[in-house]
Amino acid sequence: MTHQGSVAYIEDIARYEGQPVVIRGWLHNRRSSGKIHFLTLRDGSGFIQAVMSKAAVDEDTFRRADHLTQETSLIVSGTVRADSRAPGGFELDASTLEIVGTSVDYPITPKEHGVDYLMDRRHLWIRSERQHAILRVRAEVIAAVRRFFDDRGFILADTPIFTPAACEGTTTLFPVQYFDDTTAYLTQSGQLYNEADAMALGLVYCFGPTFRAEKSKTRRHLTEFWMVEPEVAFATLEDVITLAEDLVVSVVQRVLERRMPELKRLERDVSKLEQVQKPFPRISYDEAVTMLNAKGQPFEWGGDFGAPDETVLASSFDRPVAVHRYPSKIKAFYMEPDPERPDVALCVDVLAPEGYGEIIGGSQRIADYDLLVRRIKEHDLPPEAFEWYLDLRRYGSVPHGGFGMGIERVVTWICGLDHLREAIPYARMLYRIYP
Amino acid sequence: MTHQGSVAYIEDIARYEGQPVVIRGWLHNRRSSGKIHFLTLRDGSGFIQAVMSKAAVDEDTFRRADHLTQETSLIVSGTVRADSRAPGGFELDASTLEIVGTSVDYPITPKEHGVDYLMDRRHLWIRSERQHAILRVRAEVIAAVRRFFDDRGFILADTPIFTPAACEGTTTLFPVQYFDDTTAYLTQSGQLYNEADAMALGLVYCFGPTFRAEKSKTRRHLTEFWMVEPEVAFATLEDVITLAEDLVVSVVQRVLERRMPELKRLERDVSKLEQVQKPFPRISYDEAVTMLNAKGQPFEWGGDFGAPDETVLASSFDRPVAVHRYPSKIKAFYMEPDPERPDVALCVDVLAPEGYGEIIGGSQRIADYDLLVRRIKEHDLPPEAFEWYLDLRRYGSVPHGGFGMGIERVVTWICGLDHLREAIPYARMLYRIYP
Repeated sequence: MTHQGSVAYIEDIARYEGQPVVIRGWLHNRRSSGKIHFLTLRDGSGFIQAVMSKAAVDEDTFRRADHLTQETSLIVSGTVRADSRAPGGFELDASTLEIVGTSVDYPITPKEHGVDYLMDRRHLWIRSERQHAILRVRAEVIAAVRRFFDDRGFILADTPIFTPAACEGTTTLFPVQYFDDTTAYLTQSGQLYNEADAMALGLVYCFGPTFRAEKSKTRRHLTEFWMVEPEVAFATLEDVITLAEDLVVSVVQRVLERRMPELKRLERDVSKLEQVQKPFPRISYDEAVTMLNAKGQPFEWGGDFGAPDETVLASSFDRPVAVHRYPSKIKAFYMEPDPERPDVALCVDVLAPEGYGEIIGGSQRIADYDLLVRRIKEHDLPPEAFEWYLDLRRYGSVPHGGFGMGIERVVTWICGLDHLREAIPYARMLYRIYP
Repeated sequence: MTHQGSVAYIEDIARYEGQPVVIRGWLHNRRSSGKIHFLTLRDGSGFIQAVMSKAAVDEDTFRRADHLTQETSLIVSGTVRADSRAPGGFELDASTLEIVGTSVDYPITPKEHGVDYLMDRRHLWIRSERQHAILRVRAEVIAAVRRFFDDRGFILADTPIFTPAACEGTTTLFPVQYFDDTTAYLTQSGQLYNEADAMALGLVYCFGPTFRAEKSKTRRHLTEFWMVEPEVAFATLEDVITLAEDLVVSVVQRVLERRMPELKRLERDVSKLEQVQKPFPRISYDEAVTMLNAKGQPFEWGGDFGAPDETVLASSFDRPVAVHRYPSKIKAFYMEPDPERPDVALCVDVLAPEGYGEIIGGSQRIADYDLLVRRIKEHDLPPEAFEWYLDLRRYGSVPHGGFGMGIERVVTWICGLDHLREAIPYARMLYRIYP
């Protein structure tokens, strides 16, 4: 079969208006009248409708399109025509059609399927318009994060996945049988290594998968998730909050600029995202507690916020809110106490609007050797596991700080999803490691 | 103490010529005459010499610099002065000095230390000029790889770390105790998932840590390493080789453009890197075997190349060489056979020059369902583990291909290192998961 035209991706189709092109992809959908086939094609970069009129093609070609099934792979050539009614602004007037691979009884049809059914077929489900859009937004979020840090002179320093000791208790760690009788644990955060790297490289970030063996089945937990963690030598809490704010604004902005078609396909209310501008409101934990009680959500000082509390807090603002200075008791051992009020930590959580909850958690870290040793003891942690970490306070300690941002939580928020499982290609959860 | 000037990073110092700046960092080295202290400072972005003359500062400040120890953290202000003899082109005429954190008996001195000693102190070793340079090159390599794919419309789709079944035998897999009685295995490659993702998104890549439980102690093995793997729907072997070539040229080019000071500090012969231009020589496995025998390296058709063979082959060329069409028997089950000669596979390895060996391995994948099922049986693999993978051939199969490139191998080559362990912040090896 001879196809006429340049091989093109649907995403770039506007460049080819009025020209012949060759599209290689899959049949997403089909409807036919007696004299015209309307074939919705997808090629991974987008979707386009090919219009095949009986008058425009030979008999064989038209008949070949009569019984095309969903997800048949094909090569179609035709002429690109602008059409303002088309979702992407263009249609293809088809002239040739070649079938590459058949598809019999494709298991995901336009009808409704249960989530477990779809998750069992995740390798196919991602071909759907909605999942396709989410994964493209995810890729854009990650590219935005990396460019943000690279452009500001941060050095990417990958922290290890295999870690030697159970730094924060073993209950939520996944053990790995390493060689001989050694047990390694999968990382929960690159932060301790990040601190060492910041002392060597000044401005650093790590960005990789992290693991939590939590037996929770909520819509906000995965056992394997991606996290970006910047760490900055000589940074104060103030610097950490500003960096978090700049990052979130930059990521949302880039997605709005480059993934608007995907957001529309997800029926996301983008006006909510357009409000994500500096400055973010900043409130102390104390103020947050007062706010909760004033809004009829009883809350006692000293506890950690649950999802309903975060929703109430976030609903008071049209953009993310930074909540700082939580009680030290409910926060990690390495957080610097506020010198003016040592019962609270120089830490911050950023809560996304619209009830999506915490997306960022960070702090200034303890710089003083003696205080850090005391905190390790108070938290009943094994001091020998922290010998190398204490070296950072032995040899030229400096104030420093950073944060972690969970990628799936950000994607869930930006896409407006109900559950984290759709924000990653292959979600790992309590009862799911397949496919 | 009052410091005069803007807070600046050493990397940006040229912008501040003649102006007062504040540098925050660590003492890397010090020498003194009676009337002048020469303080080499590092701040993570670079190194600079601060010159403190007794005449220019008050008595206290000068005395404070008398006994400064290596890795003391400090804040120094002064005026930036161009000096063509300085490695970075500038020096600082110091006017104030504040000590932030002391450093007593820093364990890594300018004298020689053994590698195990240094690896035990990796969290400090990375502060040295040489390790600092390597890590900055590594970050640049990774940024270059990601930009290359992002700019070409590839969608990043992260493949899972936890995988359900031992697809290629369990001997080199790390098992993880998942919940209850489930065992998960750490991924060795994202390829199978990549293939599913390419059918959904067209052009994809994954880029994450991968794991091999190999009990080898060579300088070319890590148990945890980072790999980038692109996969392209409708790609042939020819497309795969061209993509690999473009990627390698683009990465080397970007490092040359942006990390020349680091390459010089590593005493890398950059003329060798400048030769990395298109086109790469392409030779078949058959030709490679003939070449080895002609060069006095006896080699029998059918075997896989060892490191010495790769070195001999690579030494015939001034740039990377693509070796294609290896015997199917020694390659993975999913590789498409050459239709003109089914005993060889449509695959390619790219060997780096100067004896650095294989950096890329890739292939066109089997598109036909029946052939793939036959290969799975021939390789004694458990068919049930591949049910979802076979779906990709059931529903609209297309020709496709891709490759994997090991980041630490590329960094080792570009930096001219002896061992992979220096090409990653915290190397994991047979006997090392600390720090």
